[in-house]
Amino acid sequence: MNTTFLQACRGEKVAYTPVWLMRQAGRYLPEYQQVRAKVSFLGLCKTPELAAEVTIQPVDILGVDAAILFSDILVPLEPMGAALEFHESRGPVFPHPVRDEAAVSRLRVPEPEAELGFVMDTIRLLRRELAAKVPLIGFSGAPFTLATYLIEGGSSKSFLYTKKMMYTAPELYHKLLVKITDCTVRYLKAQAAAGAQALQIFDSWVGVLAPCDFAQFALPYVKTIIAELKKATDVPIIYFANNGATLVDLSVESGADVLGLDWRLPLDEAVRRVDGKVALQGNLDPLALLLPHARMEERIGRILRQAKGARGHIFNLGHGILPEIPPEQAKFMVEAVHRLSARKG
Amino acid sequence: MNTTFLQACRGEKVAYTPVWLMRQAGRYLPEYQQVRAKVSFLGLCKTPELAAEVTIQPVDILGVDAAILFSDILVPLEPMGAALEFHESRGPVFPHPVRDEAAVSRLRVPEPEAELGFVMDTIRLLRRELAAKVPLIGFSGAPFTLATYLIEGGSSKSFLYTKKMMYTAPELYHKLLVKITDCTVRYLKAQAAAGAQALQIFDSWVGVLAPCDFAQFALPYVKTIIAELKKATDVPIIYFANNGATLVDLSVESGADVLGLDWRLPLDEAVRRVDGKVALQGNLDPLALLLPHARMEERIGRILRQAKGARGHIFNLGHGILPEIPPEQAKFMVEAVHRLSARKG
Repeated sequence: MNTTFLQACRGEKVAYTPVWLMRQAGRYLPEYQQVRAKVSFLGLCKTPELAAEVTIQPVDILGVDAAILFSDILVPLEPMGAALEFHESRGPVFPHPVRDEAAVSRLRVPEPEAELGFVMDTIRLLRRELAAKVPLIGFSGAPFTLATYLIEGGSSKSFLYTKKMMYTAPELYHKLLVKITDCTVRYLKAQAAAGAQALQIFDSWVGVLAPCDFAQFALPYVKTIIAELKKATDVPIIYFANNGATLVDLSVESGADVLGLDWRLPLDEAVRRVDGKVALQGNLDPLALLLPHARMEERIGRILRQAKGARGHIFNLGHGILPEIPPEQAKFMVEAVHRLSARKG
Repeated sequence: MNTTFLQACRGEKVAYTPVWLMRQAGRYLPEYQQVRAKVSFLGLCKTPELAAEVTIQPVDILGVDAAILFSDILVPLEPMGAALEFHESRGPVFPHPVRDEAAVSRLRVPEPEAELGFVMDTIRLLRRELAAKVPLIGFSGAPFTLATYLIEGGSSKSFLYTKKMMYTAPELYHKLLVKITDCTVRYLKAQAAAGAQALQIFDSWVGVLAPCDFAQFALPYVKTIIAELKKATDVPIIYFANNGATLVDLSVESGADVLGLDWRLPLDEAVRRVDGKVALQGNLDPLALLLPHARMEERIGRILRQAKGARGHIFNLGHGILPEIPPEQAKFMVEAVHRLSARKG
């Protein structure tokens, strides 16, 4: 197995910089679309054979150094008791937003193997199929991000209801977040037990918080999750605080082995800020995959140079790959990262 | 006239920290809604008596230290030749996106007094009505932000078409941006000539750019605008790069007198970064207006302390006030800023 990704997560020396892409199993791949044509999005997440098939596609097609479980961060919220619908245009919708004591009390903490068994089955299947290939990353949403979906009832621009609860009903907010945290600890422990070789925690919306609110209303729950996981497993843990340029200093305290970075913060500045305490993952603008090859290579080269001095570096996009990206551009990127980072023997 | 705002913009000593709110003339005020009930949004922008009326409302109701012209950054794009519609749900829509050479060539640079005369008439009316009150701020969008609306055909999440043009047709992108820049220079010069006493340039979407792209595809046009304005007027110029925490160092080079900041970057870090070269405006989370008074005061006090050492500080929200904010909370904020910042005689 190619273990470059795991070595970089642990800050060990690597022969070249490993690379994977957020949402690498996705709509930009015709092979994915063929599978998806037969089944709904949630149906795909819940069918281990199909979820495993699309998980492996980018490993074979692009040559990335890690696979990431095909699923969605919202999947564990369903067995918590939150009805979930995916609309093609509006995205995820929770028809019954969680905004009061009664709604928070109704949420329950599911038992992962019994109620999210399809995820663990997918992981077990993937470990067998990936055995000679690359490591498998499991994942979850971070408590703040998951809470925003429950409280807003879906995506949001202003996060009005979330911040309203934070600011005017902090005890209720805390009760909700503790429940989500408890659920997430069990969910990620089960993923590691099933065979996930690294775990990424996606905090997709945390960039709407000022650092003082991040420290109070988001980071403590991430810390709890990571501390609990560290008691049970030694798989590397990646924390991705999207749009979190001003949250990097605090994110180092999360206990994660790796911090994921979007494309807004130059990687050399991140290297200085984290001061060798964690490895870094990122951070090409996902739309830079549209650049002509020579100019894309320049950017990749710059990021690789900026990463010098990092405890470890995993190349990635700064956010998920978009459906409009030609797969051959993504393939070129992976090849260029490998070529430009290869240590001279 | 209360000139505290203008003094702070210029880095002069002030008796207390001046404050205004982005979107202070807006839907959260019942008095605004009464006017708006009689006329469409664009109709309100184009009727000087009504636009002036809603501009003055927050001065009288909240006690802010500056008025900002009621208008929209997209208004000058109409006489450039871009048909514009406002939908209650979808926001602004340009039914004919500008994505090719022919579409860029069709855009023209309007003559502001002839084709945007209603704006200059509103400014002249306001200067008379505000004479004994507070200064009047004029404004425009920044070229990058205006270009995104034209290229995407409205708002966007990924800014796919904008970045596609930047990355794959940079000459066409440049041609479009030069045209928008030319239009904006004339528009802001006309506003200053009509009596605007400060000018704010809103770069609402520039936070989707990595610093290297900001330096190449956004900042140069802002620099041109400010350099041209400085030849014609000495009114203070404020540049607001929304979600621009990683763009602050470069933004200092814009030539602006004041940088506006959203709530993500702690103000003391901004003070260190700009190193006395510009004054700062910001930066309370707009939803912190939902906080109970004692806790809102704590945050205001913290921002005022963080601003110590700034060349000048104008208190503001980090983004526009939202329709859901009770006006009395905004009024409390203005009063608290004045009280907590008052220099002891």
